[in-house]
Amino acid sequence: MDSICMSAGGATYLPNGVKMGFREPGGRLAAGATVGIVGSGDFAKSLTLRLLRSGFGVVVGSRHPKRAAEAFPHVVDVTHHEDAVEKAGLVFLAIRREHYSSLWGLKHLLVGKVLVDVSNNRRRDQYPESNAEYLASLFPESFVVKGFNVISAWAMQSAPRDTCSLVYISSNSLVARQQVLELSRQMGFTPVDMGALSSARDIENMPLRLFPAWRGPVLAAVALSIFFFAYAFVRDVLHPYLKSGLSLFYKLPVEVVNHTVPCVAITLLALVYLAGQLAAAHQLGYGTKYRRFPAWLEEWLACRKQLGLLSFFFGGVHTLYSLCLPMRKSDRYLQMNMAYQQVHANIENSWNEEEVWRVEMYLSFGIMSLGLLSLLAVTSIPSVSSALNWREFSFIQSTLGYIALLIATFHGLLFGWRRAFEEEAYRFYLPPSFVIALVLPVMVILGKALLLLPCLGRKLHRIRRGWQANQGRRDLPRSANHLSPERVTIM
Amino acid sequence: MDSICMSAGGATYLPNGVKMGFREPGGRLAAGATVGIVGSGDFAKSLTLRLLRSGFGVVVGSRHPKRAAEAFPHVVDVTHHEDAVEKAGLVFLAIRREHYSSLWGLKHLLVGKVLVDVSNNRRRDQYPESNAEYLASLFPESFVVKGFNVISAWAMQSAPRDTCSLVYISSNSLVARQQVLELSRQMGFTPVDMGALSSARDIENMPLRLFPAWRGPVLAAVALSIFFFAYAFVRDVLHPYLKSGLSLFYKLPVEVVNHTVPCVAITLLALVYLAGQLAAAHQLGYGTKYRRFPAWLEEWLACRKQLGLLSFFFGGVHTLYSLCLPMRKSDRYLQMNMAYQQVHANIENSWNEEEVWRVEMYLSFGIMSLGLLSLLAVTSIPSVSSALNWREFSFIQSTLGYIALLIATFHGLLFGWRRAFEEEAYRFYLPPSFVIALVLPVMVILGKALLLLPCLGRKLHRIRRGWQANQGRRDLPRSANHLSPERVTIM
Amino acid sequence: MDSICMSAGGATYLPNGVKMGFREPGGRLAAGATVGIVGSGDFAKSLTLRLLRSGFGVVVGSRHPKRAAEAFPHVVDVTHHEDAVEKAGLVFLAIRREHYSSLWGLKHLLVGKVLVDVSNNRRRDQYPESNAEYLASLFPESFVVKGFNVISAWAMQSAPRDTCSLVYISSNSLVARQQVLELSRQMGFTPVDMGALSSARDIENMPLRLFPAWRGPVLAAVALSIFFFAYAFVRDVLHPYLKSGLSLFYKLPVEVVNHTVPCVAITLLALVYLAGQLAAAHQLGYGTKYRRFPAWLEEWLACRKQLGLLSFFFGGVHTLYSLCLPMRKSDRYLQMNMAYQQVHANIENSWNEEEVWRVEMYLSFGIMSLGLLSLLAVTSIPSVSSALNWREFSFIQSTLGYIALLIATFHGLLFGWRRAFEEEAYRFYLPPSFVIALVLPVMVILGKALLLLPCLGRKLHRIRRGWQANQGRRDLPRSANHLSPERVTIM
Repeated sequence: MDSICMSAGGATYLPNGVKMGFREPGGRLAAGATVGIVGSGDFAKSLTLRLLRSGFGVVVGSRHPKRAAEAFPHVVDVTHHEDAVEKAGLVFLAIRREHYSSLWGLKHLLVGKVLVDVSNNRRRDQYPESNAEYLASLFPESFVVKGFNVISAWAMQSAPRDTCSLVYISSNSLVARQQVLELSRQMGFTPVDMGALSSARDIENMPLRLFPAWRGPVLAAVALSIFFFAYAFVRDVLHPYLKSGLSLFYKLPVEVVNHTVPCVAITLLALVYLAGQLAAAHQLGYGTKYRRFPAWLEEWLACRKQLGLLSFFFGGVHTLYSLCLPMRKSDRYLQMNMAYQQVHANIENSWNEEEVWRVEMYLSFGIMSLGLLSLLAVTSIPSVSSALNWREFSFIQSTLGYIALLIATFHGLLFGWRRAFEEEAYRFYLPPSFVIALVLPVMVILGKALLLLPCLGRKLHRIRRGWQANQGRRDLPRSANHLSPERVTIM
Repeated sequence: MDSICMSAGGATYLPNGVKMGFREPGGRLAAGATVGIVGSGDFAKSLTLRLLRSGFGVVVGSRHPKRAAEAFPHVVDVTHHEDAVEKAGLVFLAIRREHYSSLWGLKHLLVGKVLVDVSNNRRRDQYPESNAEYLASLFPESFVVKGFNVISAWAMQSAPRDTCSLVYISSNSLVARQQVLELSRQMGFTPVDMGALSSARDIENMPLRLFPAWRGPVLAAVALSIFFFAYAFVRDVLHPYLKSGLSLFYKLPVEVVNHTVPCVAITLLALVYLAGQLAAAHQLGYGTKYRRFPAWLEEWLACRKQLGLLSFFFGGVHTLYSLCLPMRKSDRYLQMNMAYQQVHANIENSWNEEEVWRVEMYLSFGIMSLGLLSLLAVTSIPSVSSALNWREFSFIQSTLGYIALLIATFHGLLFGWRRAFEEEAYRFYLPPSFVIALVLPVMVILGKALLLLPCLGRKLHRIRRGWQANQGRRDLPRSANHLSPERVTIM
Repeated sequence: MDSICMSAGGATYLPNGVKMGFREPGGRLAAGATVGIVGSGDFAKSLTLRLLRSGFGVVVGSRHPKRAAEAFPHVVDVTHHEDAVEKAGLVFLAIRREHYSSLWGLKHLLVGKVLVDVSNNRRRDQYPESNAEYLASLFPESFVVKGFNVISAWAMQSAPRDTCSLVYISSNSLVARQQVLELSRQMGFTPVDMGALSSARDIENMPLRLFPAWRGPVLAAVALSIFFFAYAFVRDVLHPYLKSGLSLFYKLPVEVVNHTVPCVAITLLALVYLAGQLAAAHQLGYGTKYRRFPAWLEEWLACRKQLGLLSFFFGGVHTLYSLCLPMRKSDRYLQMNMAYQQVHANIENSWNEEEVWRVEMYLSFGIMSLGLLSLLAVTSIPSVSSALNWREFSFIQSTLGYIALLIATFHGLLFGWRRAFEEEAYRFYLPPSFVIALVLPVMVILGKALLLLPCLGRKLHRIRRGWQANQGRRDLPRSANHLSPERVTIM
C-alpha cells in the first residue's frame, strides 16, 4: 500500500544501492508525492500549476525564495536550492544549460535522484553534446531524464483538453525513464519513450524544426512553379510580343498563373506514384524486398503524403483561378468584341460542336479529379486516417489516387485536344505546357499498367510476401499474414 | 518492489497454481522484463524494435537462429523456439496459423504462459473458428490473448507520433488480458478491451473490412445517382431528340450531371433526418423508448453521419459544376447568339425582373445551405467532434442541419419557381427532376414541424426521459439527468 | 499480488482507519474487482456494459431489483440498495440529485467508500452548490468523486474507438481521485484531473455550455455583418432609388451580401492581429511582461483562433458569391444590353487596359489570400495542430497569417483602385464600403511594421525573455529557454 509506505517513510534500495524511498513499484510516483523544481521562471511556474493540478506536491528551489514566492501559489514550498533538492526524489531542472554548473555544490544531494532536463536551445546542434548528456556528465550519480522540452510554458499551463501533447522522454536509467513516462501520463500528456539519453540531441532539436518533412516537396513545387511559369510566359506572352508586337502582359496575373498551377499539380501527383513504382522496380530487379532502397528513394517514399497534399492544394488553386476566368474584364471585353464581330459578320449561329464537347468533357473530368483528390486530402487528416485500417487507407490513397491521376490526365489531354499535333502550337519550337506536364503522368499510368500485368504483378506479390529470387521458398516458419513495411510503403 | 522481486527471481502462484514470477501486481510487466517472440518475419522484426524502444528485453525463437540473427539488433537474443519460450513469461506468436501445430512439442513449456496471437487471415471468416480460439484449443493450459493484429508491421516499427493506433485485445483470462492491455499502453498504443476470446473473430476480421459503415450510404448514393441521371437524360436529352430531332447530347457531361448531383445531395440530406423522425414515430406509437427499433431502422440511424457527409460531398460537386457553367463554350455560343438576336430584334433592354430575382435568390440560398453543410462536415472530423460536448454537437448536427435542409429546399423551390406548374415542363408526362427531388425534403420538413407541435413534442420529451404510456410515472429512483441513447441517436 | 489479496479478502487500512480492502497500491482497482451502481436507468445500464467490457464485476442497486434485472445482462448482480452498496468499495450513484437523500439510511454502509457522482443538471448553476458538494455534505465520511457526467449514456455504451472522450474528475480525497482517474483510464476514457471538489460546479456546467469560446467572435461577426449590410444597402440600393428613382433592390440577395461578407472577413482577420499588437503595446508601455493584461484584452487574445476561423468562413462565402456573379441572369441581361450598345455605337474594340489589369490583379490577390487562409484553417484542426511544434504553429498562424492579411488588403485596395478618391463614390457623403473595411487592416499592417523596427522589436524581445524596464537584468537563474506564455499568446 503506497500511502502506508509513504507515511512510514519506507525506503527501499535498488540494486545499485540508491535510496528510492519515494518510488512505488512500476516506477509510478505515489499520489501526492512531492516533486522538486529548480528554477522560478515562466516554465517553472507553469510546471508547478500542472503538477498541483495532477495531485502532486511541489517544492521550488530559487536563489531568492522570498522574492520568487510571490509568483507561486501559496501551497507551494518555495525555498533554497539545497532544501528543494533534499525534499524531493525527482527534480525538474527549469534553468538554462549555462546554469547547470551552479548546481555543482549540491552534487552530494543529487546522488540517486531523478533529474529531469527540460531545457531547449536556440539553434539546432548549438553545443557539441546535448544539454541532457552534459548534465549527466556533471552528475554521474544522478539519473538524468530528458523530457517535456517540446511543451511550451503555455501548453504546460493550459488544460489538457486543448493540447493532447506528446512528450518525448529518454534516459539511460530504465527505472527513471519509466517513472517520468508514468509521471507525464499522470500529468495528462502522451509520453513517447525515446530510449537511451543519446537521443536527447534529437529531442532537443525537435522544437526547433520547421516542417522538415515538407522541405523536399515544397522545394519541388517551387522549382516546378518557376519552370512552368517561365515556360508559359515565354510561349504565351513573350512569343506574341516578339513575333507580332502584341502586348498580352495582362495575362500574367491570372492566365499565366493558371497555366502554371495545374501543370505543377499533376506533376506532383505523378511524383507520388512514381516513387512507389521505382521501389517496385527495385524489388523486381533485385528479386527481394530485403535489399534497402537507395537513400534518395527512401526519402522520396517518405514524403509522398506531403507531395499529394501539395498537389491537392495546387489543384484547388487551379480550380479557383479557372472559375475566376469569366469574371475578368478582359474576358468581358473579348466577348463583347466577339458579339460585335458576329453581328457584323452576320453569323446567326456560331456553334462549334467539337469545341463544345471538348470543353464539357474536360470540365467534367477536372471536377471529378478534384473531388477524388479532396477525398485523399481528407483522409490525410491525422484523426481521420487513424480511424482507418490499412486496407481502407490503401484503398483511398492508392486505388482512388491512381484513378484521380488517370482522370486528371484525361482532363489535361482533353484540354489539349489536337493542339499537341498542330504546328502553330509550337511557338519557338516549344510544345504547349500541357504536353510537358502530361509526359510524367502518362508514363506513371503506363508503368502502373505494366505492374498490373500478371507476370510482373505475381512476382512482385511473391517478393513482398518474403519470397527471394535466389533462394526460393524460405524454410523458416513464415511470419503471420501481416502487412509488411514495404507493402504499406509502396502504394 | 518489482525490481527486487525480479532480481530475486521471486515467484508467486496464481490460484490455478501457475507460476507467474515475472508479473507485477495489476498485470503490469516490470520495466526491463523479457518478452518472447516466436517467428522471425517482418512483423517479428518490427515488434522487436518497438519492444526494445519501450524498454523491454526481447528473446526471439526461430528455426534457424543463426541465419535469422542477422536481421535483428545485437541486443536481441535470437535462439531456438524451446529456449525462447522458456526464457519469457509472455510470448508473441508471430507465425501463421498453419504453423501453430508445429509448437505442439513445446506444450509443456507453454503451460501458464501468456501467448499473444497477432495473426491475420486473408479473407473474412476464413476458418470455422478464429485463429486465437484455435490456438487456445491447442494449448488449453496457456493464457491466449488476441491482439495487435490491426497494427501493420510498418506502424509497429514507426514512432508513436504518427500513429496513435488503437489495439483491440481479448482473452478469457482477465489477468493475462490486463497484462497485455498494459503492455500495449507501455508500447505507446491505445488499447481497447474487447472482453472474452469469443470476440477474436471480430478482431481478426477488422483489418479486412473496407468501410463497412459506408456501404449502405454509398449504395444509396449510387442508386439515387443512376436514377436521377437516367431521369434527367430522358427528360433533357432524349425528349428533345425524339420530339424535335434536337441533338443535345453535349449536355451529358455537365448539365445532366449537374441536374443529377443536387437531387442526390438533397435526398441524402433528407434521409439523414427522416431516420430520426421514423424513430420518433416509433417511440410515439409504442409510447415508450424501451422498445427496440426494427433492425433496418437501427442500421439507418447508425449511418446518418455517412449520409450527411455524402450529401455535403455531392453538394460541393454540384457547386463546382454550377460554377463551371459560364466557362463552357456552349454557354458562350448561346450568349453570342442571343446577343446577335437581341441586336437583330432591336431590343435595347432584355431585362426580366422576375427572372433576375429568382436567380439572385436561389443562388444566395444555395450558397447559404452549402456554408451550413460545410460546418456540419467540419464537426464530423473526429478530433473536432471529440472537442464538442453533446449539446454543441446536437446544435450543429440537428439544429443547423435542419436549417441547412430548409434552405436547400428553398434553393430547390426557387430554382423550380413556376415550372412545376407549367404543362410544358412535363415532358413524357414526367415532372421535372427538382419536383421529384423535393418531395422527400418537404415531407421531412413537415414532419419536423409536426414534431415541434406542443402536443407531440411534449409527449416525445416525456418518453425520452423514461416515461412509459402504459405505466405512467416510474416509481424507481430515476436515472440522473443523462442523455439517453435515443436522445443522442435521434437528431 | 492483487488477485491473491482479493481472493483472501485481504483488507488494509488507510491512515483514517477506513477499510480499503479492494484497493491496490496506486489507487488502481484490481482487475475483476466489483463496482457498485445505485440506480437502474439508461446511464446505469450503459455504465454497466462499459464496466463489464473493461473486465470489472458489477452489482446494481435498485428499489425493485426483480423488475430492473430484466434490463441488465445476466452476469450482473441486480439487488437492493443496501446489498449493492455493501458489496463494493466504489459505488457510482446514477440517480438524480433529488434522490440523494433517499440513501441517507445507508449512511453507515457508505462510510469510507468512494462515491462517484455522475449527475447533471438541466440549467447552469441550477442549485446553490454543486450536486457533488451536496452529496459530500450528506455523506461526510465517504469519499465523493465527481466525474463521467460529460459522457452521454450513448458514448458510455459505444466502443471506445469512436469516442476518445475526455472525463473530468475532481475530489477532495487524493487517493479516491487517483482511483477514479485510473478507473476511467481502464474504461478507455482520457481522464482530466480537475483537483478539489470545488471544481465540481464547473464540471457540472460543462455539458450545458454552448460554444462559450465562440460567443464573442460570433457576436462580433454578426454586428459587423449588420453594419456593413446596412451600409451597403444605403449606398448601393437606397441612394440610387432616392436620387434617381432607380430600383436596384434585386441587388439585395447577392450583390449587397457580397459587399458585406468580404468586409466582415477582412475586419475579423485584422482583429486577430490587433489583439496581439495591443498586448505588445501593453508590454512595451509597462516595460515588463509580468503585468497582467486587462480582462477584455485577455478574452480577446483567447478567442483569436475563433476570429480567424470565422474570417476564413466569411472569406470562403465571399468567394462563392463572387464566383456566382457571372451566373446571374442580371449579369447576363446587362451583358446583352452592353453588346447591343457596342454594336449600335459601332465600337469594334471596347478594351480598357487599366480596367483589365485592375481586375486580373485583384482576382489573383484574392485567390492567394484565400489559399493562405485555408492553410491557417487546416492547421486549426486539433489533430493537425497537435502534430505541429510551437515554431511551426507560429510560422503558420503568425507569419503566413500576416502575409494573408497583407495580400487581402492589397486585394481590397485593387478592388477599390481610384474610386476612393472620386467624388461620385461618396454617396450621401459616405465613403465606399471597402474604404471603411480597409482602415483597420491598414492600421494593423502599419502597426506590425512599427513593431518590426529594430528599436521596438529588440526591446519587446528582451521583455518577452524576462527583462524588466525598472529592474534591469534579473539576478535569478533564468528559466530555461522556454516559450513563455506571452510569446505564444501574442502572435
